[in-house]
Amino acid sequence: MAAPDYGQLLKDFAELNNSFHTFRESMLYSNDSFFLVSTSIIIFLMACGFAFLEAGSVRSKNTTNILFKNLLDTCISSICYFICGWAFAFGTNGNAFCGFGQFLLIDFDPLLFPSWFFHFAFAATASTIVSGALAERCEFYAYISYCVVLTGFVFPTITHWAWQKDGWLANGPEGIKFKDFAGSGVVHLHGGTTALIGAICLGPRIGRYEDDETGTPAVPMKGHSTPFAALGGFLLMFGFFAFNGGSQSTIDTPGDAQTIGRALTSTMLSGAWAAITVLILNKMFVGKKWSLLMSINGVLVGMVSACSGCDAYEPWACSVVGIGSGLSYLLVLKMVEVLRIDDPLDAAAVHFGGGLWGLMISPIMMNEGIIFVANRRAFLQLGWNCVGALAIIGWSLSLMGSLFLILRLLGLLRVPEEVELKGLDLYKHGEAAYPLVAYGHGWDDPADQLHNNVKHRGLRRTDNDIESRNNSFSHNNGSPYSVYDNRLGYGSSPAPPPRRYFETPEVHAMHQRDQPISAWNDLEKQNTYLGASWT
Amino acid sequence: MAAPDYGQLLKDFAELNNSFHTFRESMLYSNDSFFLVSTSIIIFLMACGFAFLEAGSVRSKNTTNILFKNLLDTCISSICYFICGWAFAFGTNGNAFCGFGQFLLIDFDPLLFPSWFFHFAFAATASTIVSGALAERCEFYAYISYCVVLTGFVFPTITHWAWQKDGWLANGPEGIKFKDFAGSGVVHLHGGTTALIGAICLGPRIGRYEDDETGTPAVPMKGHSTPFAALGGFLLMFGFFAFNGGSQSTIDTPGDAQTIGRALTSTMLSGAWAAITVLILNKMFVGKKWSLLMSINGVLVGMVSACSGCDAYEPWACSVVGIGSGLSYLLVLKMVEVLRIDDPLDAAAVHFGGGLWGLMISPIMMNEGIIFVANRRAFLQLGWNCVGALAIIGWSLSLMGSLFLILRLLGLLRVPEEVELKGLDLYKHGEAAYPLVAYGHGWDDPADQLHNNVKHRGLRRTDNDIESRNNSFSHNNGSPYSVYDNRLGYGSSPAPPPRRYFETPEVHAMHQRDQPISAWNDLEKQNTYLGASWT
Amino acid sequence: MAAPDYGQLLKDFAELNNSFHTFRESMLYSNDSFFLVSTSIIIFLMACGFAFLEAGSVRSKNTTNILFKNLLDTCISSICYFICGWAFAFGTNGNAFCGFGQFLLIDFDPLLFPSWFFHFAFAATASTIVSGALAERCEFYAYISYCVVLTGFVFPTITHWAWQKDGWLANGPEGIKFKDFAGSGVVHLHGGTTALIGAICLGPRIGRYEDDETGTPAVPMKGHSTPFAALGGFLLMFGFFAFNGGSQSTIDTPGDAQTIGRALTSTMLSGAWAAITVLILNKMFVGKKWSLLMSINGVLVGMVSACSGCDAYEPWACSVVGIGSGLSYLLVLKMVEVLRIDDPLDAAAVHFGGGLWGLMISPIMMNEGIIFVANRRAFLQLGWNCVGALAIIGWSLSLMGSLFLILRLLGLLRVPEEVELKGLDLYKHGEAAYPLVAYGHGWDDPADQLHNNVKHRGLRRTDNDIESRNNSFSHNNGSPYSVYDNRLGYGSSPAPPPRRYFETPEVHAMHQRDQPISAWNDLEKQNTYLGASWT
Repeated sequence: MAAPDYGQLLKDFAELNNSFHTFRESMLYSNDSFFLVSTSIIIFLMACGFAFLEAGSVRSKNTTNILFKNLLDTCISSICYFICGWAFAFGTNGNAFCGFGQFLLIDFDPLLFPSWFFHFAFAATASTIVSGALAERCEFYAYISYCVVLTGFVFPTITHWAWQKDGWLANGPEGIKFKDFAGSGVVHLHGGTTALIGAICLGPRIGRYEDDETGTPAVPMKGHSTPFAALGGFLLMFGFFAFNGGSQSTIDTPGDAQTIGRALTSTMLSGAWAAITVLILNKMFVGKKWSLLMSINGVLVGMVSACSGCDAYEPWACSVVGIGSGLSYLLVLKMVEVLRIDDPLDAAAVHFGGGLWGLMISPIMMNEGIIFVANRRAFLQLGWNCVGALAIIGWSLSLMGSLFLILRLLGLLRVPEEVELKGLDLYKHGEAAYPLVAYGHGWDDPADQLHNNVKHRGLRRTDNDIESRNNSFSHNNGSPYSVYDNRLGYGSSPAPPPRRYFETPEVHAMHQRDQPISAWNDLEKQNTYLGASWT
Repeated sequence: MAAPDYGQLLKDFAELNNSFHTFRESMLYSNDSFFLVSTSIIIFLMACGFAFLEAGSVRSKNTTNILFKNLLDTCISSICYFICGWAFAFGTNGNAFCGFGQFLLIDFDPLLFPSWFFHFAFAATASTIVSGALAERCEFYAYISYCVVLTGFVFPTITHWAWQKDGWLANGPEGIKFKDFAGSGVVHLHGGTTALIGAICLGPRIGRYEDDETGTPAVPMKGHSTPFAALGGFLLMFGFFAFNGGSQSTIDTPGDAQTIGRALTSTMLSGAWAAITVLILNKMFVGKKWSLLMSINGVLVGMVSACSGCDAYEPWACSVVGIGSGLSYLLVLKMVEVLRIDDPLDAAAVHFGGGLWGLMISPIMMNEGIIFVANRRAFLQLGWNCVGALAIIGWSLSLMGSLFLILRLLGLLRVPEEVELKGLDLYKHGEAAYPLVAYGHGWDDPADQLHNNVKHRGLRRTDNDIESRNNSFSHNNGSPYSVYDNRLGYGSSPAPPPRRYFETPEVHAMHQRDQPISAWNDLEKQNTYLGASWT
Repeated sequence: MAAPDYGQLLKDFAELNNSFHTFRESMLYSNDSFFLVSTSIIIFLMACGFAFLEAGSVRSKNTTNILFKNLLDTCISSICYFICGWAFAFGTNGNAFCGFGQFLLIDFDPLLFPSWFFHFAFAATASTIVSGALAERCEFYAYISYCVVLTGFVFPTITHWAWQKDGWLANGPEGIKFKDFAGSGVVHLHGGTTALIGAICLGPRIGRYEDDETGTPAVPMKGHSTPFAALGGFLLMFGFFAFNGGSQSTIDTPGDAQTIGRALTSTMLSGAWAAITVLILNKMFVGKKWSLLMSINGVLVGMVSACSGCDAYEPWACSVVGIGSGLSYLLVLKMVEVLRIDDPLDAAAVHFGGGLWGLMISPIMMNEGIIFVANRRAFLQLGWNCVGALAIIGWSLSLMGSLFLILRLLGLLRVPEEVELKGLDLYKHGEAAYPLVAYGHGWDDPADQLHNNVKHRGLRRTDNDIESRNNSFSHNNGSPYSVYDNRLGYGSSPAPPPRRYFETPEVHAMHQRDQPISAWNDLEKQNTYLGASWT
């Protein structure tokens, strides 16, 4: 019985052995890729989150503009990351400073496509952080320039330093690695620093701070839609789980899954503690109210801070991380205000403040951190994280700062004063966020009785000439145009106003480009510009 | 050839055997965790869904408030579930009633982190259900209290009963288990009951129902944004797939994947049948129109009902589940109205009605249910589901009801009448949903011709004094403030109104707290309060 | 030592061998199902994306209507796909033309549930594409009819042709298969053709194009909310990644994961190139502005074109795909305008133009495509894709076109003129998108000073009678009704207007159905309809 079976068994065994190892390899790659891909898709939605956080936080006259920038961010990022971003970050033939290879993804290993998409999603996020700080006044070409430079070179080099095997931050003294699991430093500190220097170079929006010379007081610059800001906040929280969980990159190596679970738990708890800290301190000392917008930023700053060490915190330790990040947010916010920097989205406070705190606290509070084992190695880790933070700040400041300065000197950084004051949407995009002509319907409503009162008065007083009817409508509706909209409903009514009355912004702008500012005062006296102020 | 090879073969075999079993264990845990984590992240987005369903369904003056509550829900839930929620639900050293161990997640098995995050997402959902029913009038501290009690104790005990191995509902007579796959009872019936008792204790919003004493008729209380309600509905449907599919908890045990597929199919079909039922019955007997808002609630109630048995329905059986859940929704809705309970979001009808129906129908329609095998065991299952339903209702009513009653007796449950009438947003949060100052732009638009008419009339009539100019603007824009916004555009114009004219809500509230209601009438005669009615 | 061990070893080996193969089978099915399920859930969210892209692109008076249609789409699709859609697409006992079996999912293999849900999500998407083109004027029953026919029969047959093993398009000459990885043809060309023929049969909205007879100029028909359109765009991009990645259907076969990564990369790059193409060409030649709405459509058309071959493009090749799709979008857009077809969402340009381009370019640019290997086989592939495109266009045109024509002849296709002009929301659904009564709050605001001016004038002039007070409010607020809302706040004020003043749309419609159009002119002279024009 033995001999013939034995040869067969050997063969069968070899086959099984082979099948198993092939299967294991295939499975590990497949599942890790599946994990990468599914988290990247969710991270991609952070672009939508930022878009709506920002859209809700600007005035209606600049809403289309900020949405446009956030949409283009993802497009430009993808193209830059394809052309050279990946090459500088993870290209072959690299050194400690940057990668250098596979430009245009030529000679790219197809097995790395899921990885490319994942890192592109990170680059797009880093770039989007900045747009908030420059909102409502940044010139379109300036925006494109920083987006190209950031996603094509600056961000990729930083990822290379910290997350590529041969990056210098990943090879610290005594085998220490820069501790930045999901990018408190690489993504958020970098983005926040860029946002800060961008906001400084741009200068505050007109009217944001009291004018010392003329004494003109500051005007309130509230965002136009709290619900949109909240929508953005929720989508960002959603995205952060994928961002922080996905940073493990693999799911099938033993230990991966529990690390990912821990990362999510830390992210949520840290965000929650930060939100409550910001909420209570704001209520007690700052705004005296329960601020939703501050709470949203609180959650976000807590999650930003969690990035650095969320894979290694005990759940209770997240309270320290979160409360501290809330404090750092409020501190940076105060500093920004004292320095009269105008950052409409508090991007610096959230991402610079939160990112820096995250890098500082992770070597302290994480498992094997300073409070658990206060040995040389733990302190070295803290030191190396400080070095990394300084390097990221310095690199972002010098490169992105130079770019903003050059743009400023060339006069390309900021939109003309008139465009800023009247809003970017119509001038730049020709698309109001909420075009008046699109509103209104023709059905009567409960207030009908009042209308009749008003209408009859109008009619009696003016013999029902067209002017007075327009007038009586402008009383009721706040919208003269709606008369036409309404009347059109009956086919037989007068036509809408001829197109030549549609004065596009350019007409004014071209008109005035060669006139001194003083001319505007005259224009204003003629009441030419005072008419329209709706969107 | 044989002997030496044989020893080697044995060794190789042992190694392979070992590798395989290690790999299998690792793989099963990894993939199940991956499944848990990815579904939890999507379930988390249900918080956003509820936030927008509710934001769209309240008036604009309470929008910031309801968004704030939904945001804090997730934060507070996470902290309570970290401190004691998990301990009572799944902590070691438990008994049939609750778990008791791993408070603060100390001595927590890190392998369970994905599981913690999953169950936290459920707890946050359960808690969010309630906020809809209390919308537009609930005091902030009352809200925090119920949120803490619900996610810290009441909900965890119920999950322990039904979903933990040693829970009493999971160990029914003759080996019967409480049939509640994804929480028709545990999550929705519990949340719906709490919502119902909360709405009863709070009482209806002022003006919601006709006043029997004074005869003041009811005023329409419509939600301010149908699109937001629809956004919430879509996000909740999205979340429900993860909620019902994810309840399988594992993906790699044979049979898991097909069960998950079946759960999704049942969820969708049940929601669809329910929506169509509600739509048609509403059109025929109630509203005489094709109501979008009712259809959204229809989809949701169908999905709520599907929770209980969605893993075990044949696709055709979902029509019975769905149509019945639509009927139960309309029935509870009618009862709530007859009893003059004010539930702005129909949370009771959706979650109480749908949840209860789900528990009753699953033992009947599921595979091996009463209609297939009308044996003793099948009827026992129905009986045990009834016992479970009664237990959940009783437990929720007694604990959450007591809490609401205590809060009511302490006067902490409801906001002051004036705040309710004027809206919670500005008083509580200082943040309007749509701040007027943030709207408008400076560009001319097609209605320019009309503007000129109005403007010239204004100028002619009044010699262009400031009052009449403000006036002519208020005609055009519906917004006097926009004058400043607009005029600021030219630098040379008068400054915005000094800050002292900004009367914050507190000024009034403090002023009036010691005055009798009658004083308000006088105030009203003086026209002090009639001015502002925009958001 | 040898003999007894050997028997044991054989047994152990058989057991291991068995365990491994069982495990492998189970794992492959589980993971592939997990992949299908998770991508389907995200694809499902495309319904929400389309809903908001469309809601933002219609006027406020038709917003509830379009949201309603998109919600019902998913419900009706699921029921039709359950009843007969799956049967015609993938049912057993099929032939080259269609499947035929498992109607009502009876005798359905439960292992296919994930697959059913996946294909249902595709069917729902195909159906939703059409609703945009018919927006603002399509009758409700017509909409239900096309939705039923499309998801119950027409779309399923096309999927059978192209994606089922025995479909005729999948069995081309010389072993060539129709190259349509993710549905440029099956989903988008089909949906776009249906949208086109639907828009043609419906005719343009009143006022969309200049009236040649009367010379009435076209009126601007802008969408009412750019942010909603952008939200829809972002959600669709999010969904497209799942749509194009998920089309691989499996994740664990070797090569799957890298194909999926490649598909995502191609999708993003193609969308980005298309957006930039559309953006720049529009700026240079068409609108002279940086259009956000055009850019959104640009991204989408790029992703639509990528569907066909995104699994097989080199990253650099996506620039050709994307730029070409941008051009085809602009071309179709121009043609549609020249032909005076009214497609409010540009659904034809995006899905017909993009889908057709995608089918044409993939045999050329893909790996082993014409530019790489210009052999007979490569040209045959291009030819077969042309055949497929023609078949899909012909099939969609003949079936869906016939349906639309029949509906038109029966007078069921388009809403009555008055309803179209006044808006569908209130007439059909009784639910305004933004009900006026839900807006406003009672707190003073910074513009208080101006209010007082206005109010005092009002009071002085009119002795404070009720009419003048209403009047002065309508000046300030743009909303007479808000007076009541406001006043109600004080309990003592006059009641809201009695219900009989609430004139619902039906009152008018019933009133006028029997009157000649000329009667409306009289009505208009009496000023009856001019009153209300807000939503």
